[in-house]
Amino acid sequence: MACLLRVARGGLSPWRGYCSKGTQGALSEGFVEALKAVVGSPHVSTAAVVREQHGHDESMHRCQPPDAVSVAPEHRPGQPGWQPCNGQRVPIIPIGTGNGLEGGVCATQGGVCINLTHMDRITELNPEDFSVVVEPGVTRKALNTHLRDSGLWFPVDPGADASLCGMAATGASGTNAVRYGTMRDNVLNLEVVLPDGRLLHTAGRGRRSRKSAAGYDLTGLFVGSEGTLGLITAATLRLHPVPEATVAATCAFPSVQAAVDSTVQILQAAVPVARIEFLDDIMMDACNRYSKLNCSVAPTLFLEFHGSKQALEEQVQRAEEIVQLNGASHFSWAKESEERSRLWAARHNAWYAVLALRPGCKGYSTDVCVPISRLPEILVRTKEELKASGLTGAIVGHVGDGNFHCILLVDPEDADELQRVEAFAEELGRRALALHGTCTGEHGIGLGKRQLLREEVGPVGLETMRQLKATLDPRGLMNPGKVL
Amino acid sequence: MACLLRVARGGLSPWRGYCSKGTQGALSEGFVEALKAVVGSPHVSTAAVVREQHGHDESMHRCQPPDAVSVAPEHRPGQPGWQPCNGQRVPIIPIGTGNGLEGGVCATQGGVCINLTHMDRITELNPEDFSVVVEPGVTRKALNTHLRDSGLWFPVDPGADASLCGMAATGASGTNAVRYGTMRDNVLNLEVVLPDGRLLHTAGRGRRSRKSAAGYDLTGLFVGSEGTLGLITAATLRLHPVPEATVAATCAFPSVQAAVDSTVQILQAAVPVARIEFLDDIMMDACNRYSKLNCSVAPTLFLEFHGSKQALEEQVQRAEEIVQLNGASHFSWAKESEERSRLWAARHNAWYAVLALRPGCKGYSTDVCVPISRLPEILVRTKEELKASGLTGAIVGHVGDGNFHCILLVDPEDADELQRVEAFAEELGRRALALHGTCTGEHGIGLGKRQLLREEVGPVGLETMRQLKATLDPRGLMNPGKVL
Repeated sequence: MACLLRVARGGLSPWRGYCSKGTQGALSEGFVEALKAVVGSPHVSTAAVVREQHGHDESMHRCQPPDAVSVAPEHRPGQPGWQPCNGQRVPIIPIGTGNGLEGGVCATQGGVCINLTHMDRITELNPEDFSVVVEPGVTRKALNTHLRDSGLWFPVDPGADASLCGMAATGASGTNAVRYGTMRDNVLNLEVVLPDGRLLHTAGRGRRSRKSAAGYDLTGLFVGSEGTLGLITAATLRLHPVPEATVAATCAFPSVQAAVDSTVQILQAAVPVARIEFLDDIMMDACNRYSKLNCSVAPTLFLEFHGSKQALEEQVQRAEEIVQLNGASHFSWAKESEERSRLWAARHNAWYAVLALRPGCKGYSTDVCVPISRLPEILVRTKEELKASGLTGAIVGHVGDGNFHCILLVDPEDADELQRVEAFAEELGRRALALHGTCTGEHGIGLGKRQLLREEVGPVGLETMRQLKATLDPRGLMNPGKVL
Repeated sequence: MACLLRVARGGLSPWRGYCSKGTQGALSEGFVEALKAVVGSPHVSTAAVVREQHGHDESMHRCQPPDAVSVAPEHRPGQPGWQPCNGQRVPIIPIGTGNGLEGGVCATQGGVCINLTHMDRITELNPEDFSVVVEPGVTRKALNTHLRDSGLWFPVDPGADASLCGMAATGASGTNAVRYGTMRDNVLNLEVVLPDGRLLHTAGRGRRSRKSAAGYDLTGLFVGSEGTLGLITAATLRLHPVPEATVAATCAFPSVQAAVDSTVQILQAAVPVARIEFLDDIMMDACNRYSKLNCSVAPTLFLEFHGSKQALEEQVQRAEEIVQLNGASHFSWAKESEERSRLWAARHNAWYAVLALRPGCKGYSTDVCVPISRLPEILVRTKEELKASGLTGAIVGHVGDGNFHCILLVDPEDADELQRVEAFAEELGRRALALHGTCTGEHGIGLGKRQLLREEVGPVGLETMRQLKATLDPRGLMNPGKVL
């Protein structure tokens, strides 16, 4: 993996075609040697190319490489590796698959990036208890492949084949959240290396009961903490039975309003839809081209239903009635597994389909989430403003949760366009807050939304979060500059 | 309400027939006057009878009255009331309906008990968003009565008609959790008065979107914190559509093992059961007598299914096949609302039904929760040991979550029996921990399970919880002596 993202002066300012050099000079001379001595020499690198590989995620945030990269040994992370960092106050930045969209791995203050992808064992599977324990290198797809014959699956699906512990750290969700919940609902326990090197089991060592009322919810505190409170080295996840049958469908609508109204009505009718995704006309056009679909270029819903064959029929019938009342046409069923896979692959490739609309451009994804009743209003307005702005962008979203993304294109050479994208994204975030929503449904705060977080949680909320950070990470070593 | 629970020297030691007098002398002379000046004279009482009413919950923990009781004014809690407490380091103990089972309201260090039951407004209902905002005096039943014509309901049901904010503070769950989740899954936002008097909105002021990845999960931190981090003055809750149809059933089994095996198999078959409660033979006998049921005196499951009429038929058929394979007999359906209500009233009165087995005795409820696969083993063993112990006790539980209660009877005059009950409960807690479970599924830690919490979360977990407490409540004013 080369350093695909280039350095810039500010958050979203133009690329200069190089990666910043980090603060390597700041490391004391003996530090890397000390690190090698405890972690093992082959597991530490300060080569520029390696550092650059680890200085960015999939977002437009400029590449900020760490001073050194330490690859956590195959199985247990060398807790001793903590000692040199802690002793010399060197920042620690955990990285998994690097699929983040908010610059969560940028080494804003240099430091050591710990690459966890080699810790990739599924250490415990308890099919009868619907639970599994995974190391941080295990990805969503790897887990589901492992579970193939167990009758179980892990439904949280952010699109990318992200590492599950990374998904826990981000508080990820995705297309199945409307039915199965987000990472918050599906993590039972976490093993965390605290900034001082101690090992914490957030729900007690080995616990995997479905619920507990024993003390403060430490698991919940670490889910979504974006690596700023400690390094997740294992996660106990909740599994779900594979549905007996699955049906997917697409349907095109005469307007954005009609598509979103249908979503709200399907939820209100208590149809237990598993996925309900909105794609606007621009997005459908992009998907048709990129993924060779043959769908109408119109506001569209992708739906999926899970259940017994009998239950499915009823769900589908109810949903069909609702969408037809809202003027849907081109209702198209995908009952076969292959056909469904093609549909969802197209949905998952929406990001790349938009990028392909203007080759050479970079993408930026907004991530607001609002109460479902405010969704038609904000979506319709966003669509209008996008048109008026002259920007190139498409809308796609997990509308069953009230969460949608505006994927905007930016010419890296066009500083003005970049500024307009930034302004558009910030205004959209504020509009969501005014409608009792959040600036981020699933991507996290990272580097770019810290001002919006301030506005969202208010001074007391922000101060409380700062106090928690200062308590658990008094030296500010864990992934500094993120979230707060 | 008189002081039903009497003082004792230790946790579960015999009652002496009086309430302790608290530490009222410790309050400075001008304190109560200062409190009256800011809260309003009619809202403060130091009368012994009022203090005693507020010094206990429904558990056997001895009544420990506060030094003063402050009734929060009808609508907004007088934040200024905080100033005298904070200035003079006087403990603050919040109380709602007082239905706790772990001594969570006992004023172990005296202080001011804040009674929140008069703050009983439902301040905001957003039916389209499936959300509602309630003040701390609103109970579960009051909310559901209010929702009667909305097509929505709040499913978390711990049996007692507890206040919803109290349920949030305890991390309560109950009979519907297997399908609808616990309070952790159903609280979207909390308004909390922090120990220094500042007002915190855990998810940002007014936010009610279904999900968020914005910063640390402060809502999750306060759910289940048992009043030790701040005082909850409003909760935004997630509502659910009222099911189109509901069917309940009881079925008797030849053995505990057969009943619990059926539970595990029903879950594994992905039947979306809404309630699945186990009652042992002693409990069934007690319920027959107390609630005038006519059920077999045998290990029994109470089941409930929610869904469309068509979906229900299928669920019921699958469940019926499974229980019959496990030898169930006397399968009895309750399709009418009245019949169902009678059944669940009997289930909810299980506590009183057991108390009626030996009039004059007090009850003590254990609350372990284990991974579902370990449930047959621990339930069968607990049943055997209960028999061998010579204690009077019955078992009832939310077995779909792996959570069950052993309701044990104690003669208040029999110190030996009390010790045996204590030992039995502690050993059961340890057995659950050994099976990867928790000492408390839904009652919380309170006063009595602090040693078990230490064992459950380990030294690092406990130290982390202590750090959080010290950070958010540096003077240790909020409900001291609980949880940690």
